[in-house]
Parts: sequence; structure tokens; C-alpha cells
Amino acid sequence: MTASTIAFSGSALDRADHIRANSEKLAELTNWRARLLKLDGLAPVIAPEGGLEWGTLADADPAAELVFLGLSAEGRACFAAVSPALIGSVAPPSPALWQVMSLLAPDELATYGGAKALVDWHARHRFCARCGSATVLAKGGWQRNCTNGACKGEHFPRVDPVTIMTVECDGTLLLGRQPRFPPRRFSALAGFVEPGETIEEAVAREVHEEAGVRVRDVTYVCSQPWPFPSSLMIACHAHADDPALTIDETELDDARWFSRAEVAHAMSGAEDGAFIAPPPFAVAHHLLKWWLEQ
Amino acid sequence: MTASTIAFSGSALDRADHIRANSEKLAELTNWRARLLKLDGLAPVIAPEGGLEWGTLADADPAAELVFLGLSAEGRACFAAVSPALIGSVAPPSPALWQVMSLLAPDELATYGGAKALVDWHARHRFCARCGSATVLAKGGWQRNCTNGACKGEHFPRVDPVTIMTVECDGTLLLGRQPRFPPRRFSALAGFVEPGETIEEAVAREVHEEAGVRVRDVTYVCSQPWPFPSSLMIACHAHADDPALTIDETELDDARWFSRAEVAHAMSGAEDGAFIAPPPFAVAHHLLKWWLEQ
Ligand SMILES: [Zn+2]
Ligand SMILES: [Zn+2]
Repeated sequence: MTASTIAFSGSALDRADHIRANSEKLAELTNWRARLLKLDGLAPVIAPEGGLEWGTLADADPAAELVFLGLSAEGRACFAAVSPALIGSVAPPSPALWQVMSLLAPDELATYGGAKALVDWHARHRFCARCGSATVLAKGGWQRNCTNGACKGEHFPRVDPVTIMTVECDGTLLLGRQPRFPPRRFSALAGFVEPGETIEEAVAREVHEEAGVRVRDVTYVCSQPWPFPSSLMIACHAHADDPALTIDETELDDARWFSRAEVAHAMSGAEDGAFIAPPPFAVAHHLLKWWLEQ
Repeated sequence: MTASTIAFSGSALDRADHIRANSEKLAELTNWRARLLKLDGLAPVIAPEGGLEWGTLADADPAAELVFLGLSAEGRACFAAVSPALIGSVAPPSPALWQVMSLLAPDELATYGGAKALVDWHARHRFCARCGSATVLAKGGWQRNCTNGACKGEHFPRVDPVTIMTVECDGTLLLGRQPRFPPRRFSALAGFVEPGETIEEAVAREVHEEAGVRVRDVTYVCSQPWPFPSSLMIACHAHADDPALTIDETELDDARWFSRAEVAHAMSGAEDGAFIAPPPFAVAHHLLKWWLEQ
């Protein structure tokens, strides 16, 4: 599976990380030629000609912090602004946001997603978790530093690893329904990786917790950056020998084993089958596609 | 590769996550039969008979917060204490800590590592990053809640995904030396996964940034929880067509291509070869072993 088929991956920006720590170079690039990613709250703005709308640094709120996203193919510095209006806001993805994002080409969706995750992190991390003092943006937005001279805490953008997995037993596939899903949607089970466990251990724990199924032979399939707020989805496949289900009803509305024909029908886009498949944005969609191709 | 061969994986504790949110059940388990993992600062304490030393909750500092680690095989609740003396401390692994850890069986090392990462997180996250107010432990230590009623921020233990990778070109393997390494040690290149990139993109970016090498065909090999302070090491292998190196000297002292014979000699434990291999604790050790077995 190529990375470019997975939503939110494949940005064409060069992150140019050597520039982040070079304050002279960064100041030099923070000029009138630099591009500013236009945001409406945390949503992308679509240009009249289509695609992401970019402005100049003059478009940023004068009180905004600037995050260095990287260099465009033409070598222009690209930034996003953490404007005061965003501070402390919490914005889960809305149907309107999904519609706007669906207008973007894959590389632009990836650029937007990376910028959104980073700007969102700055908006929600104004203070030092160690001492409670205010923090300030550093290294082009890839760090925040505590302003308390006795603490000097350094804080880095957070990425939460999440495992998401299909489980196979006797030719059928285990999928579940989270309470927040639209009607009849089933998708892969998922859960955060916790301190002290491998990816494979997290997969086995989640499947057992949510569905009561013991798995073996966990294999990695693909990964996806997910900017709500900032996860790394790690998609895996596992096998089970006993299909008996014990569903954790605090986590799932339902979980069932679906036949290959049922999965293929749902993945064809049909909504009249045993279930409605996860949308192409979701890495679960790729997991199901991958399984059908095996 | 089985999980149990990787250091810090394979804990025998049942995380029993359904208990975390059940305050009644949790209170019931916080009794005189519960076990407390003894810590010396953030280091494990070795029992007179060998292995991790466990006490009872009476051994905890009365002002300590208690973290619920899970259930032992006999169904006893296991806890670790976030004692006031740990608050704000920063403790990178020391040679003495490595020596103590080497005395532990694999499952006990995993139990210790998970507990250490969690206790350490509590010690460094006393305040709400969103508003700067004090936070309190919740859900048996798997959450901290902001005490500011206008914020109500919820914070979760952090796990940082890190990619670590070997690169192969024409039968030779790319390894690098970080400035902090002991003399003549070379290991796999590594770097944090950033918001907006897949595992595969992170691997390609790191290798290009640190060594100037373009890679293709990135494959996942295995993963490891790394409790310093709390990373998820994601070990990958990649291929390169052009071995020309441009070393980022701010990140690496050196990087070189080693022959299969040189890698095999170093991995045999020999210290008289082209380089000294990463130690068995490190997932890089497993990556090199995996490569030799291909
Ligand atoms: Zn601080
Ligand atoms: Zn707060």
C-alpha cells in the first residue's frame, strides 16, 4: 500500500527541520514572500481556484504566534498562525469540516492536517504541565518553553499512537460499532497504545477488552496521521481461533463477524448490505480493502 | 519475532482497564491485600529473593497519589505511588539503573517499565497545559483532571511514537553514532514521529535529515515500549539505492555503511570489530538481529 492512498499523508512540504533551531535563518524566512495557510478557526479555507488558500504573513493576527510548517517546492517558507481566538478552543471534526476537506487534493489534505494538529496543540498548551507557568513558542513552533526560570520545562507537540485492527476468524472479519457512529456503520476496533506495551500487546488488549476475543499473529498493515486532535493511527490485522464475543457495552454498541462477501458488498459503497463501511478518509477503510485483496 | 524477546514488553499484569473508571470497585481494591511496587526514586527495588520488591499500600507516603497498574495473576490489585519527593524530578537512565534493571526477568522488567513511565508522567504533569491550574489524579492514574471548573481539562498519560530504522544498500547496513553513545558504539538511526506524517514518512524524513539518504520500501519490523520517559519505539527497515552520505553533525557524530560480516561480528558480542553493537535492551539490537536472519 502506498502512503499517498491514505488520507492526511503525502504532504509535498519539506519540513526542513534544520531551520527550526536556526533562529537567524528562521527570522530571515519570516518575510513578505512567506506563505500563510489561511484557516477559518481550525478549518481549511478553499481558494477561489480550488485547493488550500494561502496568504502572506500580513494576513495573520498581529498577536498570533507563527508555526513554521516547512518549505514549498519553490523554496518559500510556509507558516500557520496560532491566533488568540483559537486559544483554549476545542473543535472536534464536524460534518461541514469533512465536506471542506473532501475538496482538497491528497497532498494538500496532508499539509492541512499536519498544520491543524500543530496549531491545535499550541492552542491547548499555553501552560507548563510541570509548574503551571506560561509557555512561549520556540523553534518555529516545534517546541514550547516554560517562562519560569526555575523550571525551564521544554514541551513538544504531542502525537498519540492508536492501534486500529481487524480480526479474522475462520474467514470472517470482526468489526464493531461505536455509539457515535452513524446508523449501521461498522468499523475496525481501536484504542490508544498505553505506556508499557508494544503495538502488538495493545492490539491484543483492545480486542480482548472490547470484544472478549483472544488474538494471535498480529501484523502491521499501514499507518495514518489523524489530526483530531493529533493521533498516529497504527493499522494492524490479527487472527482469532475462538469467535465467541463478550462485548464491552461502555465502549461498543455492537460487534459482529462479517463474511468476506458482506465486507466486499459494503466496501463497494452499497448501503443495503449487512453494514455500511468506514469512509475512505478512515484508515479502517484501507484495512478492509487490504483484507479483501489478501 | 515474539514480543517476549523485546525488553520492557511482556508484563504478566492484567491492566483491567474496566476497573479504572469504576471508582467503587477501585476503592474496594485499594485495601490491605493490595500490592505496592517499591521504587527507589524512579528505580526498581530488588527483593532479597530476587525480582521486583512489592510492599503494601501502608508503605506508601501518606501524601502520595496511587496509580492502579492492574491485577496480578492471583487477582490482587497492584499499585505504584507518586510520592511528593518525585514531583518535578527529571531522571534519565543511569548506568546504575541499567544494572538494577538487568537483574529483572523480562515480564518484571515490563511491569516496572510501564509503572515507571506512568509514575514519571504524573510527577511531571501537575498542572493543566490548557489553563495552568493544578490537576488531580483520576481513573486510577490513567487520567488527570483540571481543578479549574471553567476549564475541566482532561489529560492522559503520554506515549511518544519514535521511529528507529536500519537502511540497507547493496548488502550493507547504515548505522550511526549519537554524541551521547559510548566509544565505538553504532546503532540504528531514530527520531520522533511528528504531527502530519505516517510511520513510513517519518522513517524517510529521519534518514534523509540525519544521513542525506533517500529510502524506499519501508517495512515495519517490531515495536518496544521505552520508559525514558515514555516512548513507543517503532522499528523499521528500509532500502536505499544511493549510499552517498551527508551527515547532520548536530545529530550524529558519524554514520557509516557496515557489511553483513561486520554486523554479525559486532552482534556476536565482540568488541574488536568495526563497531560495538547496541545492547540487548535496545530495540535496535533486535533490528540488527532480524536483518542478519533475513
Ligand atoms: Zn515550568
Ligand atoms: Zn485547566
